Amino acid sequence: MVDEVRVAVIGASGYTGGELLRILATHSKVEVAYATSRPHAGKKVWEVQPHLRGLLDVVLEDVDVEKIAERAECAFLATPHTVSMTIAPDLIERGLRVIDLSADFRLKSVKVYERCYKVKHSCPRLLEEAVYGLPELHRREIAGARLVANPGCYPTGAILAIAPLLSYGLIEPNTIYVDAKSGTSGAGATPTSFTHHPECGSNVRPYNVFAHRHVPEIEQELSALCGKEVSVAFSPHLVPIVRGILTSVYANAEPGVSEQDIYRAYLDLYEVEPFVRILEPGELPNLSAVVGSNFCDIGFVYDREKRVVAAFSAIDNLTKGASGQAVQNMNIMYGLGETEGLLFPGLWP
Amino acid sequence: MVDEVRVAVIGASGYTGGELLRILATHSKVEVAYATSRPHAGKKVWEVQPHLRGLLDVVLEDVDVEKIAERAECAFLATPHTVSMTIAPDLIERGLRVIDLSADFRLKSVKVYERCYKVKHSCPRLLEEAVYGLPELHRREIAGARLVANPGCYPTGAILAIAPLLSYGLIEPNTIYVDAKSGTSGAGATPTSFTHHPECGSNVRPYNVFAHRHVPEIEQELSALCGKEVSVAFSPHLVPIVRGILTSVYANAEPGVSEQDIYRAYLDLYEVEPFVRILEPGELPNLSAVVGSNFCDIGFVYDREKRVVAAFSAIDNLTKGASGQAVQNMNIMYGLGETEGLLFPGLWP
Amino acid sequence: MVDEVRVAVIGASGYTGGELLRILATHSKVEVAYATSRPHAGKKVWEVQPHLRGLLDVVLEDVDVEKIAERAECAFLATPHTVSMTIAPDLIERGLRVIDLSADFRLKSVKVYERCYKVKHSCPRLLEEAVYGLPELHRREIAGARLVANPGCYPTGAILAIAPLLSYGLIEPNTIYVDAKSGTSGAGATPTSFTHHPECGSNVRPYNVFAHRHVPEIEQELSALCGKEVSVAFSPHLVPIVRGILTSVYANAEPGVSEQDIYRAYLDLYEVEPFVRILEPGELPNLSAVVGSNFCDIGFVYDREKRVVAAFSAIDNLTKGASGQAVQNMNIMYGLGETEGLLFPGLWP
Amino acid sequence: MVDEVRVAVIGASGYTGGELLRILATHSKVEVAYATSRPHAGKKVWEVQPHLRGLLDVVLEDVDVEKIAERAECAFLATPHTVSMTIAPDLIERGLRVIDLSADFRLKSVKVYERCYKVKHSCPRLLEEAVYGLPELHRREIAGARLVANPGCYPTGAILAIAPLLSYGLIEPNTIYVDAKSGTSGAGATPTSFTHHPECGSNVRPYNVFAHRHVPEIEQELSALCGKEVSVAFSPHLVPIVRGILTSVYANAEPGVSEQDIYRAYLDLYEVEPFVRILEPGELPNLSAVVGSNFCDIGFVYDREKRVVAAFSAIDNLTKGASGQAVQNMNIMYGLGETEGLLFPGLWP
Repeated sequence: MVDEVRVAVIGASGYTGGELLRILATHSKVEVAYATSRPHAGKKVWEVQPHLRGLLDVVLEDVDVEKIAERAECAFLATPHTVSMTIAPDLIERGLRVIDLSADFRLKSVKVYERCYKVKHSCPRLLEEAVYGLPELHRREIAGARLVANPGCYPTGAILAIAPLLSYGLIEPNTIYVDAKSGTSGAGATPTSFTHHPECGSNVRPYNVFAHRHVPEIEQELSALCGKEVSVAFSPHLVPIVRGILTSVYANAEPGVSEQDIYRAYLDLYEVEPFVRILEPGELPNLSAVVGSNFCDIGFVYDREKRVVAAFSAIDNLTKGASGQAVQNMNIMYGLGETEGLLFPGLWP
Repeated sequence: MVDEVRVAVIGASGYTGGELLRILATHSKVEVAYATSRPHAGKKVWEVQPHLRGLLDVVLEDVDVEKIAERAECAFLATPHTVSMTIAPDLIERGLRVIDLSADFRLKSVKVYERCYKVKHSCPRLLEEAVYGLPELHRREIAGARLVANPGCYPTGAILAIAPLLSYGLIEPNTIYVDAKSGTSGAGATPTSFTHHPECGSNVRPYNVFAHRHVPEIEQELSALCGKEVSVAFSPHLVPIVRGILTSVYANAEPGVSEQDIYRAYLDLYEVEPFVRILEPGELPNLSAVVGSNFCDIGFVYDREKRVVAAFSAIDNLTKGASGQAVQNMNIMYGLGETEGLLFPGLWP
Repeated sequence: MVDEVRVAVIGASGYTGGELLRILATHSKVEVAYATSRPHAGKKVWEVQPHLRGLLDVVLEDVDVEKIAERAECAFLATPHTVSMTIAPDLIERGLRVIDLSADFRLKSVKVYERCYKVKHSCPRLLEEAVYGLPELHRREIAGARLVANPGCYPTGAILAIAPLLSYGLIEPNTIYVDAKSGTSGAGATPTSFTHHPECGSNVRPYNVFAHRHVPEIEQELSALCGKEVSVAFSPHLVPIVRGILTSVYANAEPGVSEQDIYRAYLDLYEVEPFVRILEPGELPNLSAVVGSNFCDIGFVYDREKRVVAAFSAIDNLTKGASGQAVQNMNIMYGLGETEGLLFPGLWP
Repeated sequence: MVDEVRVAVIGASGYTGGELLRILATHSKVEVAYATSRPHAGKKVWEVQPHLRGLLDVVLEDVDVEKIAERAECAFLATPHTVSMTIAPDLIERGLRVIDLSADFRLKSVKVYERCYKVKHSCPRLLEEAVYGLPELHRREIAGARLVANPGCYPTGAILAIAPLLSYGLIEPNTIYVDAKSGTSGAGATPTSFTHHPECGSNVRPYNVFAHRHVPEIEQELSALCGKEVSVAFSPHLVPIVRGILTSVYANAEPGVSEQDIYRAYLDLYEVEPFVRILEPGELPNLSAVVGSNFCDIGFVYDREKRVVAAFSAIDNLTKGASGQAVQNMNIMYGLGETEGLLFPGLWP
C-alpha cells in the first residue's frame, strides 16, 4: 500500500475532468500533480471549474508526456475518444499506469471499435492488455493492470442491472430491452442543439435507438459473463436533468423463476460490493438519491404470471458512470481502500 | 350539424377541467353553459384557473343535475373515478350526452374494473353501452354514443403506437414492453410527495411497474383489435416536465417483417387521421413539439438483424391524452368538423 | 379593413419565426405567402419547426426582395439585428409594410444604437420614421406606420410594469431597479455554453448586469412617457424554464402615495387593454398562466411604511415579448380586430 | 479540542435533518448518537433518507430528553419553529449544547418574534442568551455558546452579501432591495400546491413580497452591524431548481464610492473566511457551483454613473443556508477545525 498516489488528470476542463478533481480534492491519499487543458493552459483550474475555487489551486498545463512522467505515476485520461489512444501508449511506456475514461480501450475487437467509432485504432496491441474497469466484474484484473478502460456511463448502469439475471440464468439472453434515461451532462461540455436548453429543457427525446456506440460494450461484457451471445436492444433517451442515468431493463424470465431467485441473484453478486445497493423486491430506485455519489442503486419487479422482469439501476453518470468509478479503479490498482475518498452520500433532495 | 353545442364542464377546477376550458374558450361552436367546482363554487373560473383570466367569465357552481340538464346538452365529466359513475346515469337519463374523462366507463368488464379500482361499480349497465373514446379506433361508435369513456393518457399513447403493429401482425402479441415517461401534470392537482418538486424536480422515477391501473385498458383495446389475447408489460416513469408523455414500445418482430411493412402499417391506419402524425422510418418524435396541441407524433426504429421494433409516441397528456381528445369526441358526436377548435400547434420550443 | 393580409416571414427557422408561424397558422385573416431561411431553403417549414407538421406546408425560400414584394404586402423580419436594417429599406421601397422583430429600429438615437450594438447603422433615416411597436403606448402611430420596431422581450415586460407608476408620478424616476428572470428561449436557437443544459438546467445566473442592450430601449420609452430622464438599473437573470419572463420592478414611492393610487394607475392605463391583465393589490402573477399566450399579467405590492413598491409583470417572451406582439401590431396596421388570432389562453399548468 | 463529538439530530426525517446526516456521515470527529423522527420511529434512517443507505445505520427514535442527554453532548434541532422552543430548554438544562435550525431563537425581540410567527414564545429567557449562528459575524460568541440560533437560508445569503457594503458605509442604509430566487427544497418536505411540480416546475413566482418572516432577522443583524436602522425590502421568488438560493441585492451607493472600495470591503471582511469566496469585480456567481457545498460565492457590479450597486450571493440553502452552517457552528463550538467535514466541493455541472 502506498501513502499517496501522484496523479495526472489529462483533460481537466471537461465535465469528467471536473468531476475527477471534485473527488480527488478530498481524497486523502492523492496528490494532483498535473492537470491539463489545451484551451485553458495557464489558468488556475477554478477559473474553468467554478466548484473548485478555494479548494484546488492547480495551474492547467499543456500535455507534455515527459513532464507528466516526471511528476505523476498514475494518469487519468478524461480526453475524447481517438485522443486517448494517442496518449496512453506514451504514458505507459514511461512507466505510468493509465485509467482511460474514453472508449478507446473498452472493446476487445479492433474491428468492432473501428466500425463503431469510424476511425482506425492506432494502438491495437494495448486493446488486449487493457482491463475493462468495472470493479464488480473485474476487480482482480484491475488490481494488476497497467491500462484500465473505464466503462461508459450507459454500460455501467446496464451491465450492473443485467449481470446477475444472466449469470444465474434467470432471463432469456436474446432480446434484452434496455431503455435508459440520461441527464444532459452525459453529452459533455460542448454546446449542441441536442442539449440546448430551449430544445431539451421540457422535453424527453429518444436518440440513437438500437444504434448507440455503447451497445457493443454492453454485449461484450454480458456475453463474456454468461458464455453465450447476448443481444441487447438499447434505447437511450435524453431527459431534462443534469446528472443521473436511470436504466430500465426488460426481459422475459426463464420458466420456473421466482421473485426470490432474482433477489438472491442480486444479493449473491452484490451484497459485498461497497457501491452497489440492492433494494427489496418491488422497491424502486430513486435517482436523486445517488446523484453526487458513487453508488448504484438497483431494484426490480417481477410479474410471475406474465414471466417478465423489470430491473432498474440508478447512477450518477459523472460519478459511478465515469470519474467516481475511475477513482475506485485507482484505489484498487494502488492497494488503497477501495472506498477511499468515495463514501460521500448523494444529495437528497 | 348543429350551430352551437351547449356544454357543461363538471369538475372545472382540476387540470383536465382547466384544459377543457382552455380549448373550449376558443372553440367557435361551443357555449360553456355550466361549470362546476364544489370547493370553489361561487368564484369566477379564472380565480382558480389563472390562464383563463380575461377569456372566460363563467361562475363556478355546485353540481345540480336538474340545472345542468336545463342549460346544457353535453356534459364533460372531469371528475375523479367513482364520482363519474354516480353522475353520468342521471345526466343521461335527462337526455344529455356524456363524455367521461375518468376511468369509470372504460373497462368492459365489471370484474376487472372492481379489481383495479377497488370499489364496487355502481352502474354496470352503462358499461356495455359506453364507447371507448379513441377516435382512431372507434370513430363510428363515438358518433352515435350517449356515453363516451375518454381514454386514459397512458392508454392513448400506448394504443396509438401499438395498434398498427398488431393489426398487421408485425409483432408478437405476447410480451409487448411499454416504457412510458410522463410529465407531472398527469398526477392531477392534489399535492403529494410523489410530485413534490424537491423530490421529483431533478429525478426520474419508475412507479407502479407492471401494476398500473391503465394496463387492463390497454390490453382490452389491443386484444379486441387483433382478436388475440395481448399481454403488455407496462412500466411508467415520472420525469421532471409538466406536460407530455413519451411512450416507448418494444416488441419482437414477426419473421420476415421489413421496415417498409411497418411504415406502411402506420400510414394505412393513420394517414387520414387529423391528429396522428407519422414520422419517416428512423425519425424520432420530439415531445416538446406536441405539448399544448392535440397531436400524437409517432416514429419507429426497426433492427432487422435482431428482429426488434421500437415505436415511440408523443402526446400532451392533458390534450390528446385527456381534454383535447374529449373535445375531438364531442366534435364527432355532434357532427361538427372533427378538428374544430383543435388545430392549434404545440409550443416549440 | 382587409379580408386577408399576405405576409412574408423573413427568418422562419428561428424561435421567433417559429412562433410567428404558430400564431399565423390559426389566424383567419392571414396568408403566409413567403417564408425564408437561408440554411434551410428548399425544405418544408415543418422539417425545421416540428410543431407545424400537418398544419403549414410552406416551403422555405431564400430572401428575394422582388419575389417577396410580388407575393406579400407585409413582412415580419425575424432576423438578427444588423440583418434587418439591410432588408427593411428595400421592402419598404417596394411598398411593403414592415414589422421588424430585431433591435435595428427601436432606438431613436443613432449614436446610442451604435454604442450599444457596436456596428454602424446603415439606415438612420428610417430610425425617425419607425414606430416603437408597443400597442399600449403607441397604438395610434402603429396604425399608420410603414415600419414598426417590435419591442424587445425585456423592454415589453419592464415598460408595461413601470409605465403607470411613472405616468401618474407615483415613484421616484431616478433609480428604478428591474430584476428580470428569463427563460432560455430568449437567447435564441444558436447553442452556446450559456444555454447548454448541463450549465443552466439547475442554475440561476445573473448576466450583463447594468449593461444589457435593452436598457436604452427601456429608458427611451419611459423617459418619453413621463417627460423626465428616467434611470433604470437593469439586472437580467437566466432561469431554467424555456419560455417566460418574470420582471420584478422595485422603486421608492413618492410621499403620500396609497395602494389605491397605484391600483388606479394600472387600471386607468390598462383596463381597456385586451392583453394586459391587472391583478388585485397584493395578488402576484403566475408566470405559467401566460406561457403560450399574448397576455401580460401585472401585480404589485406596496409597503406604505417603507414607501417601497414592487411591481411584477409576467409575459411569454416569444409571444407578447416578440411574435404575438408583432401580430398584434399587424392587426392594428391593417385594421383587423386587434385581438384577431391572438385570444388563445396560456397553458396551465 | 475534543476527539469526537457525540451528537443528536432531532428531526432526522426532514430535509435539513437529512442534510445534517449527509454531512455528519463523513465527518471524522462526530458520532451520530441519536436521531429522532416521530412519524418514522423504529425505522433505519435510510428507509426515510434514501441517500444514506449503506452509509449510516442509525435507527430513528422518539424524542426522549433523558436518553438524548445520556448519549449526546450536542443536539441539532432540525425541528419546525415552535417545536424547538419546547425542546431546547430541557436539553440545555441537562447540559447539552444546542444548535437550533428553526427560527425560534433568532430574533432578539420577543415581540417581533410573536408578531412574525403568530405564537407566544414559551422561552423568552433563552432568547437573550442565544447566539445568532452566522460565523462570519459572530464567531467568537458562537465558540462559547450553549444555544446557537442557526440563521435562516434567506438571511444567510442576504446578510453575507450586504454586510460589507453597510459596514464600510458604501450604500444608503434605507431601502436596500433584496430579490431572492430560491429552490424548492427551502419549503421543506411537506407537499403543498406551492411546490407541486405541475404548478412550479416551469414557473417563477414571487411570494410573500415585503412580508416574509425572514425580514426582521435580516434587519436585526444588519442594523446591529452598522449601528443604524437598516430597512430591507425583501422579495423572494420560487424558481424551478431543487437546491440553491441566488440573492440579488440592489442599493444606491453613497457619493464618491469606487468599484475598488467595494471590492476591498468584501475582501477585508471575507478574505480569511473559509466558506465565503469573493469574485473579481464584475464577475458573477454561478449558483450550480456551490450546490452541494458549504460555500457562499459573492460577486458584484457597480455602475458609478448611476451610483447603483448590485451584489449577488449564491448558496446551497440546505448547506450554508442550514445544515452545513450548523455543522460549521458545531466545529467552532467544540474547537474542531472550522472546516472539518465541510470542505467538499459543489457539484458542477
